[in-house]
Amino acid sequence: MKERAKNAARKLQSTLVPKPFKRSAKKPPGQKPGTAIYTGEQHLDEVRMIVHDFSEQHYDVIPIEKIESSESFLQSDSKTWIQVQGLHDIEKLRTVWDYFELHPLIHEDIVNMSQRPKIEEYEDSIFVVMRMITHKNQDAESHGLHTEQISIVLGENYVLSFQERDDPVFDPIIKRLQMENTRLRKLGSDYLAYALIDTIVDHYYQALDLIGHSIEEIEELVIEDPREKHLQKIHSMRRELVHFRKSVWSLRDGLNSLIRDESPLISDEVKVFIRDVYDHLVQVIDSIETSREMVFGLYDMYMSGLSNRMNEVMKVLTIIATIFMPLTFVAGIYGMNFNPEASPLNMPELNWYFGYPAAWIVMLILAFIMAFYFKRKGWL
Amino acid sequence: MKERAKNAARKLQSTLVPKPFKRSAKKPPGQKPGTAIYTGEQHLDEVRMIVHDFSEQHYDVIPIEKIESSESFLQSDSKTWIQVQGLHDIEKLRTVWDYFELHPLIHEDIVNMSQRPKIEEYEDSIFVVMRMITHKNQDAESHGLHTEQISIVLGENYVLSFQERDDPVFDPIIKRLQMENTRLRKLGSDYLAYALIDTIVDHYYQALDLIGHSIEEIEELVIEDPREKHLQKIHSMRRELVHFRKSVWSLRDGLNSLIRDESPLISDEVKVFIRDVYDHLVQVIDSIETSREMVFGLYDMYMSGLSNRMNEVMKVLTIIATIFMPLTFVAGIYGMNFNPEASPLNMPELNWYFGYPAAWIVMLILAFIMAFYFKRKGWL
Amino acid sequence: MKERAKNAARKLQSTLVPKPFKRSAKKPPGQKPGTAIYTGEQHLDEVRMIVHDFSEQHYDVIPIEKIESSESFLQSDSKTWIQVQGLHDIEKLRTVWDYFELHPLIHEDIVNMSQRPKIEEYEDSIFVVMRMITHKNQDAESHGLHTEQISIVLGENYVLSFQERDDPVFDPIIKRLQMENTRLRKLGSDYLAYALIDTIVDHYYQALDLIGHSIEEIEELVIEDPREKHLQKIHSMRRELVHFRKSVWSLRDGLNSLIRDESPLISDEVKVFIRDVYDHLVQVIDSIETSREMVFGLYDMYMSGLSNRMNEVMKVLTIIATIFMPLTFVAGIYGMNFNPEASPLNMPELNWYFGYPAAWIVMLILAFIMAFYFKRKGWL
Amino acid sequence: MKERAKNAARKLQSTLVPKPFKRSAKKPPGQKPGTAIYTGEQHLDEVRMIVHDFSEQHYDVIPIEKIESSESFLQSDSKTWIQVQGLHDIEKLRTVWDYFELHPLIHEDIVNMSQRPKIEEYEDSIFVVMRMITHKNQDAESHGLHTEQISIVLGENYVLSFQERDDPVFDPIIKRLQMENTRLRKLGSDYLAYALIDTIVDHYYQALDLIGHSIEEIEELVIEDPREKHLQKIHSMRRELVHFRKSVWSLRDGLNSLIRDESPLISDEVKVFIRDVYDHLVQVIDSIETSREMVFGLYDMYMSGLSNRMNEVMKVLTIIATIFMPLTFVAGIYGMNFNPEASPLNMPELNWYFGYPAAWIVMLILAFIMAFYFKRKGWL
Amino acid sequence: MKERAKNAARKLQSTLVPKPFKRSAKKPPGQKPGTAIYTGEQHLDEVRMIVHDFSEQHYDVIPIEKIESSESFLQSDSKTWIQVQGLHDIEKLRTVWDYFELHPLIHEDIVNMSQRPKIEEYEDSIFVVMRMITHKNQDAESHGLHTEQISIVLGENYVLSFQERDDPVFDPIIKRLQMENTRLRKLGSDYLAYALIDTIVDHYYQALDLIGHSIEEIEELVIEDPREKHLQKIHSMRRELVHFRKSVWSLRDGLNSLIRDESPLISDEVKVFIRDVYDHLVQVIDSIETSREMVFGLYDMYMSGLSNRMNEVMKVLTIIATIFMPLTFVAGIYGMNFNPEASPLNMPELNWYFGYPAAWIVMLILAFIMAFYFKRKGWL
Ligand SMILES: [Mg+2]
Ligand SMILES: [Mg+2]
Ligand SMILES: [Mg+2]
Ligand SMILES: [Mg+2]
Ligand SMILES: [Mg+2]
Ligand SMILES: [Mg+2]
Ligand SMILES: [Mg+2]
Ligand SMILES: [Mg+2]
Ligand SMILES: [Mg+2]
Ligand SMILES: [Mg+2]
Ligand SMILES: [Mg+2]
Ligand SMILES: [Mg+2]
Ligand SMILES: [Mg+2]
Ligand SMILES: [Mg+2]
Ligand SMILES: [Mg+2]
Ligand SMILES: [Mg+2]
Ligand SMILES: [Mg+2]
Ligand SMILES: [Mg+2]
Ligand SMILES: [Mg+2]
Ligand SMILES: [Mg+2]
Ligand SMILES: [Mg+2]
Ligand SMILES: [Mg+2]
Ligand SMILES: [Mg+2]
Ligand SMILES: [Mg+2]
Ligand SMILES: [Mg+2]
Ligand SMILES: [Mg+2]
Ligand SMILES: [Mg+2]
Ligand SMILES: [Mg+2]
Ligand SMILES: [Mg+2]
Ligand SMILES: [Mg+2]
Ligand SMILES: [Mg+2]
Repeated sequence: MKERAKNAARKLQSTLVPKPFKRSAKKPPGQKPGTAIYTGEQHLDEVRMIVHDFSEQHYDVIPIEKIESSESFLQSDSKTWIQVQGLHDIEKLRTVWDYFELHPLIHEDIVNMSQRPKIEEYEDSIFVVMRMITHKNQDAESHGLHTEQISIVLGENYVLSFQERDDPVFDPIIKRLQMENTRLRKLGSDYLAYALIDTIVDHYYQALDLIGHSIEEIEELVIEDPREKHLQKIHSMRRELVHFRKSVWSLRDGLNSLIRDESPLISDEVKVFIRDVYDHLVQVIDSIETSREMVFGLYDMYMSGLSNRMNEVMKVLTIIATIFMPLTFVAGIYGMNFNPEASPLNMPELNWYFGYPAAWIVMLILAFIMAFYFKRKGWL
Repeated sequence: MKERAKNAARKLQSTLVPKPFKRSAKKPPGQKPGTAIYTGEQHLDEVRMIVHDFSEQHYDVIPIEKIESSESFLQSDSKTWIQVQGLHDIEKLRTVWDYFELHPLIHEDIVNMSQRPKIEEYEDSIFVVMRMITHKNQDAESHGLHTEQISIVLGENYVLSFQERDDPVFDPIIKRLQMENTRLRKLGSDYLAYALIDTIVDHYYQALDLIGHSIEEIEELVIEDPREKHLQKIHSMRRELVHFRKSVWSLRDGLNSLIRDESPLISDEVKVFIRDVYDHLVQVIDSIETSREMVFGLYDMYMSGLSNRMNEVMKVLTIIATIFMPLTFVAGIYGMNFNPEASPLNMPELNWYFGYPAAWIVMLILAFIMAFYFKRKGWL
Repeated sequence: MKERAKNAARKLQSTLVPKPFKRSAKKPPGQKPGTAIYTGEQHLDEVRMIVHDFSEQHYDVIPIEKIESSESFLQSDSKTWIQVQGLHDIEKLRTVWDYFELHPLIHEDIVNMSQRPKIEEYEDSIFVVMRMITHKNQDAESHGLHTEQISIVLGENYVLSFQERDDPVFDPIIKRLQMENTRLRKLGSDYLAYALIDTIVDHYYQALDLIGHSIEEIEELVIEDPREKHLQKIHSMRRELVHFRKSVWSLRDGLNSLIRDESPLISDEVKVFIRDVYDHLVQVIDSIETSREMVFGLYDMYMSGLSNRMNEVMKVLTIIATIFMPLTFVAGIYGMNFNPEASPLNMPELNWYFGYPAAWIVMLILAFIMAFYFKRKGWL
Repeated sequence: MKERAKNAARKLQSTLVPKPFKRSAKKPPGQKPGTAIYTGEQHLDEVRMIVHDFSEQHYDVIPIEKIESSESFLQSDSKTWIQVQGLHDIEKLRTVWDYFELHPLIHEDIVNMSQRPKIEEYEDSIFVVMRMITHKNQDAESHGLHTEQISIVLGENYVLSFQERDDPVFDPIIKRLQMENTRLRKLGSDYLAYALIDTIVDHYYQALDLIGHSIEEIEELVIEDPREKHLQKIHSMRRELVHFRKSVWSLRDGLNSLIRDESPLISDEVKVFIRDVYDHLVQVIDSIETSREMVFGLYDMYMSGLSNRMNEVMKVLTIIATIFMPLTFVAGIYGMNFNPEASPLNMPELNWYFGYPAAWIVMLILAFIMAFYFKRKGWL
Repeated sequence: MKERAKNAARKLQSTLVPKPFKRSAKKPPGQKPGTAIYTGEQHLDEVRMIVHDFSEQHYDVIPIEKIESSESFLQSDSKTWIQVQGLHDIEKLRTVWDYFELHPLIHEDIVNMSQRPKIEEYEDSIFVVMRMITHKNQDAESHGLHTEQISIVLGENYVLSFQERDDPVFDPIIKRLQMENTRLRKLGSDYLAYALIDTIVDHYYQALDLIGHSIEEIEELVIEDPREKHLQKIHSMRRELVHFRKSVWSLRDGLNSLIRDESPLISDEVKVFIRDVYDHLVQVIDSIETSREMVFGLYDMYMSGLSNRMNEVMKVLTIIATIFMPLTFVAGIYGMNFNPEASPLNMPELNWYFGYPAAWIVMLILAFIMAFYFKRKGWL
């Protein structure tokens, strides 16, 4: 039985919940700031780098081994997106960071897998950390939500993106890059950075979808029959929503300041699009808040369901006891052994002709009075 | 029984609650921004376009087939309102959007039926998305609230409105347009846009009216007898209010910035009216908040009603048990078979002349003591 | 019984609670803004107009029939307060509004009896809507709070006030106007407007006084004995406080902006007084918040009182059952009919000399053990 | 019993709780603003005035009868603190107010004993109202907190202080004035005003100290045994904290604006000290908030303690009932009077040789099964 | 038993909880501001001073006895960190404060062990008070969190740090100072101050780690079996989180204003690093809030666990009572002593051939009906 409970508790830890404390395990206090230590697990054999070079006229995809191979693309007039997959090999990543002269604090954040999402402006770049939340077709029991940290660096004519895995999350972007006459090809690297952010925010809707379905399911279950395992689902839901909110909330201010600030890296034309993704993010946050309120409501329903069940149980007990206790008492009376021969007052009923039927009638009347009383109280 | 519970749960999903997640179902992540995909259901056979052309001197209504037919109205000095009904035919809508050179992000929002309400300023237009909440005379069980998204584009001398259906929500405006010497005819297109927004906000009062009545009804029911189905109504109420609030809340800031910003599209004269509709919106939001507090209060009343019932049930049980248990014990005593002949100490009472009446008197005294005790405790 | 509950529910609707939804009943959506429709009940036979004309040297009170009769007063150097009582006759009111060229939106707000309290600046006037909360010596059951909407228009050398009834709420002001050498006579119409506002805010203290007494009363009652009707009082209290807060809250920002804005209608000297009434309003709001917290605390006390009672009930039941069940069992044992003659093992106790007393001793010992156990648990 | 409950309720009204409503009792609505009416009780025989005149070189204390006696001190270069004790004699106070030409609104606030704490800047003075909370060595039952309103007026080279009583709260300041070479003697009257405020804030720490001890005490009691009287203490605690917060909260903004504003009455040197007392005030507010959370936690502990007790009671009942009901049934079976002679099937057990012991064995086995079942459930 | 409860209560007072009230014990109200009184316990034999003098070229550590010995280091171009350990000897500390001409208010805060964390700018220095929270390898029962106040003064080319103990918290900084070519050696004293702050914030992660583990542990325990001691752990958790939040919350604004203000003491280069530590602090605060929500959730789970247990107990009782009460009644019927010989109606069953088995069959049927009823209700 204990084992079962522990399993239940373990299942509560959904994959959505990050491990914000792992960092400390690997990185002791007082270390040099900018010390890059990867706090995730290794997912790929090696760090891959893919150059996407494009302009209005062309689009090329070139996997590279060394970051120096991107030199020619960066020098040319084209826009260049370097996609880095795998974050376990700090040495190889450092070649990229040094090549682009990124600030050491950026190094640290890219490989710290529990970094708070944020948008920061540096002297000649904008640094974005987001939490991608994807949806996998897993069993219905777990919510199938999966979280991954993605960092984006926007420079003057380049974009760097860093992911732990080679998930195909950005494939729709790549497909759009292949098409001519798209805004993606026409506008600058700021628009590409926007497109990456937008893709990540789009995924939040799918996660919300799943959560919405779960809430409806639990609602049906709780109304039907409030069992302890439903409470655990409610609790787990509550936890997921807290972490979901934490994963998106802090981006809000970041996007807002991108819209208002006068960064030369982002054109006015792209700012309109950033306002759009900001609007989506606010809608996501609103939905999370709404879901949270629904979950609080579920808890209230669960608790009053319990109270209702208790009331029902107690009514059954009370009805039975209230009907049978007086009857049993009557039966007990006539089970007494007073000697009728010692006195005519001693239980003469026992010798009456209609004694036994009379006792039954008394008992039935008592039972009917009780039943009527309960009926009037609405308990039956 | 399960079936019944599911039905109850289904009924909780009132028509007011939007489906914020449907979007993802139709629109996969990573798509081109401004990709217009209609996320609602088709309500009309075809997209209808009606031109309302008016000035201080005239008012004409002309249904048109092609948007180019509005050219002459737009070129003239008159003000032109083009009412578009039906949003399922993206291709036809695109002819309108392209004709007025609307930003692609506006396209997307017009046909995304779960767009968050908002007011956005573009270079030469103001874009408004609102959620019309109308009231239908349906059965008393469901609240009869019905939601529809309406988009409005205000240009220099024109207004565009987009609705899913051909509901007569704007008929009062049309009637006022027919009358001469009205502000609507005298003032510019900004005043018309205001009038449309004002009409939508006016409808919120009717929805609040309905909700207010429901709360009063549930209150009476809960005070009378706290049943489980009342709790479900409370829960449903809570959900509706959360979504109602979400439907109006975000407009507040939009209207406020319209009043403060220096948009050339809105004259100072009209700003006074926008301040008025802002005031109405704030009043609506206040009432929603108040209703929410009332609903929380109802839940508290329900829970304490349950506890009260439980107390009452337990008192009945305790009174019955406490009176009959000692009596039954006394009866049990005299039902023992100790042999009076084996010893003078063995239940001599059984052979007493007043044995049986004495037993009754003992039992009655016990019962009276208990009854007196309960009386003093206030349980009877 | 149902009737009783309905009455209870009806009593909960105190007179303080406004009807924010009535408006919609009379005013359909989409109407011309500024459409004046009176949403209250008629209280007076006709609309009365009283001119109070005063300067440092004189004070005259002149009831007038037509607003044009005030012409001479308004033209002179004196300050003029026109007190309008009764709002049901829109036509007559319109003569006033048109005479002073008030904005149509002001018309609408004056006669809409569920207008949110507010302070608005127009081009050449300041418009104030407030909710007077007066206290009538009614029966102790209802709180005796009574609400009335009062509108005030401050122009350059005049003040208009609009009330539904002819309540003597402003009589203290009139008395002060009769006295010479008062600030009221010396300072301008802005000071008079302040004095009217201040009088209304002063009344809030009396309402708070009443509410404070009610809370103390309910507190005593709940501590004494938590009954269901007390809960209904708590619920009613909570509702009143929500509406009280709504009635005063929105004035706060209005007064604050009057202090800060550079309106030529209000002199610096009067601004110091407005700061004082603002301070009073903040104190009122603070007290409402505090009362709300007290009421939440009362609810918590009520609920735990219920739980305490339940515990007490259950203890009585448990003590009785736990003492008498074993005793009844023992009595049952010796009520069995095993044949002592069939075997020496068959209930030889029945034939013992001390059988019956021994059975009693066993039962008494059992009872003492139980009583000792409950004593040690602190249940007795 | 009712008497006892009323006493309990009365005790809840600690001395800390002010009477914000008394004002209305004495001051009817609509009165002239600045009408000074003392709303407290008389504590001293007469209003006392003490002049503290000091400079870097000297410090003199002179009790005066008439305010005009302070003329010479105020004219000189020295700094002068006039300490006024006793507020019941409005006429005498008015001589002071008129002498210093204080604004009438200040008069009103000084003698209104339920004034919200605040800091206001007037043309040539700064007016401060605070609530001193002192600690008296009373019995442990009441918290021994005592509240008194203190007003301070800071002018160019003078400070006025107004108190109801002659409590020695400012004695430490007087001692410091007696010492030479202190900042108090060197710096201006603004520093003296700061020192008075600082002394009042210092007293808040002692009140917090007491409250902290009370919370710890109640915590111990609640963990030990959740009784109803503990709940009343929790409720009383909650009330005190609400009022304590109200007594200090509004000062925060006042002090903050003193630091930021460019008042010529406060030098930059003294602003650093005001920042310090602001910091202390924030710390006091933080501690109040923390204490409030602790008190909410205590309530939760109390409620779950009640539930735990209930569970325990129910377990005892259930165990007893579940063990003895089957046994009593078995005994009842063998108490039936079926005639063994009428049929060999009629209760032949009664005549078995081992009948009676067998019945006991059956009953003991039943009891053991039940006990084992409860053991496994963890109820024993 | 009382003793046990007191122990439990005592254990709740974890070491994390500061003693904000101790101050008052030592420092009476009305004292001179800047009066330095140490409110902690003595931890070291004497106050130690260690000079860390460093530049890009060198790093020297010199313990000093008198603060004047640091003269030469401070005069030179190098940067100097003076680490002061032990705060009990005010006289010795005063030599340091006077030497650096620190404001008296700084003196007071350095030795007041319950000072609210803050960052304050003075004319030529920045003063920081923080609360170090370290983790000791203690027994698993207590959380092993330990709190210590650390003050830092940043001057133009020096940093002072004040600690109560000689804990090795800053040893990683010292190790980094020993290495050449580090930012710490190259950049100014502002970077050193940053590094000290960063080290303290890094420790918060470890504390969070511990708290996270505790929450997971309690969660498992509560799901398994909601016992009273788990509630005490939840309560203790809640308390710790409140105090943790209080210990870090107020730093947020301080760091934020350091980033924005134009203090000449902090270079732009270092501001980027301060932004990083600010980001970490916000992440810590977020995690505390999340943990708080988890703890509220735990309480809810605990309470519904209790209700579930109660339901289970009541079901057992009800099932047993409902099955055995009717059976006992039937047995009681046939235990009645009606005389079959007095009338053929008097319990003829007793003499039937199948009387006894028939009674059993009746009773079994009754039992089966009840069991079936409970089965259908889902109680079995
Ligand atoms: Mg919310
Ligand atoms: Mg929320
Ligand atoms: Mg909440
Ligand atoms: Mg909520
Ligand atoms: Mg809530
Ligand atoms: Mg809640
Ligand atoms: Mg709310
Ligand atoms: Mg609210
Ligand atoms: Mg609320
Ligand atoms: Mg609430
Ligand atoms: Mg709630
Ligand atoms: Mg609540
Ligand atoms: Mg509140
Ligand atoms: Mg509050
Ligand atoms: Mg509250
Ligand atoms: Mg509360
Ligand atoms: Mg509450
Ligand atoms: Mg609550
Ligand atoms: Mg709080
Ligand atoms: Mg708080
Ligand atoms: Mg709180
Ligand atoms: Mg709570
Ligand atoms: Mg709380
Ligand atoms: Mg709360
Ligand atoms: Mg929180
Ligand atoms: Mg929170
Ligand atoms: Mg909270
Ligand atoms: Mg919360
Ligand atoms: Mg909560
Ligand atoms: Mg809660
Ligand atoms: Mg709660």
